Amino acid sequence: MNPKIEKLIKQFAKLPRVGARGGQRIVLALLQDKTGRAAALATVLSDAATSIAPCPRCGVLTDRDSDACEFCRDSSRANGQLCVVRDLADVWTLEKASVFHGRYHIIGGVLSGAAGTMPDDLNIASLPARIADEKITEIIFALPNTVEGKTTQHYVMSIVQDSSDVAFSELASGVPLGGDLDYIDDGTLTLAFGGRKTL
Amino acid sequence: MNPKIEKLIKQFAKLPRVGARGGQRIVLALLQDKTGRAAALATVLSDAATSIAPCPRCGVLTDRDSDACEFCRDSSRANGQLCVVRDLADVWTLEKASVFHGRYHIIGGVLSGAAGTMPDDLNIASLPARIADEKITEIIFALPNTVEGKTTQHYVMSIVQDSSDVAFSELASGVPLGGDLDYIDDGTLTLAFGGRKTL
Repeated sequence: MNPKIEKLIKQFAKLPRVGARGGQRIVLALLQDKTGRAAALATVLSDAATSIAPCPRCGVLTDRDSDACEFCRDSSRANGQLCVVRDLADVWTLEKASVFHGRYHIIGGVLSGAAGTMPDDLNIASLPARIADEKITEIIFALPNTVEGKTTQHYVMSIVQDSSDVAFSELASGVPLGGDLDYIDDGTLTLAFGGRKTL
Repeated sequence: MNPKIEKLIKQFAKLPRVGARGGQRIVLALLQDKTGRAAALATVLSDAATSIAPCPRCGVLTDRDSDACEFCRDSSRANGQLCVVRDLADVWTLEKASVFHGRYHIIGGVLSGAAGTMPDDLNIASLPARIADEKITEIIFALPNTVEGKTTQHYVMSIVQDSSDVAFSELASGVPLGGDLDYIDDGTLTLAFGGRKTL
């Protein structure tokens, strides 16, 4: 195989859920396309790689030359609520559902002994200053509902509690909408029973 | 969402088997990566887009500035056999299995009324000249074993037969290695019965 094509396939294969075979298909589709999709994609990607950077306040990816992202610039979102999420994908998911109208704070991961993620690797230290600056009154945790997510949540709370008297909340756990009990795992059922609502 | 990120996701989403959700994941993985994978991929892709082109003889993607691909340059492959395939992915599949040691001819698709693929869209017209030039004695069809593949095969034979007395063959049809009869479709069984071997 041509070494340039081989190199390109290897790069694509490393992308999430692509793999060796998917990388081959993608590279063939791009290079055999007569409308110049390969060059077009390279241009857009190179442009994004140089001009996109995390917002210095919240971590949402935005234009490098603007001093704040679309959420931090939007004054109607300064409602005192701050939603702590793991990454930008979670922001997009919440935005798609239109459930939250405050500001976000991306911490960039969850604490994990196995993966070697320590507090210093996460965007947590800037949180107390941000809470004071933006007059945050409630922190809503929307971290993964896992041991790592909960550990991270407790760590963030311990950091923030010392310096401010903000209120904390987390997303409810329980049976998903349309969820058939047959297919729900024991952990979720335990949480749903523990958090049952009086009618 | 930032318009540059949105544009990038759209371009990735159009790639084979990626889709909107996969595009988001890929773009996030690339732009949130701190080792500069986005810029690296853009460079490799842009390089390939400008420097890779189909071999003028057989259609295999190769360096634009070389006059023939790795197969056409390799004189040990000038054994009189020419394997007609649909696309480069099929060449790679055959090469991986090391079953064929002659030259390839990529026609770039199969005739299809539904998809609007006509003979002029395929790389067939150059075939008679190529057969004469390279003293081809056998054409082996490795096109998809479908109605469209067989139609294309017959069309290629009709074009070639007029000008040369080359021999034709096609890959055998039948039960795949390790194939359990329970799981084989009726069409394959019919072909396997029709082509049964006397022992």
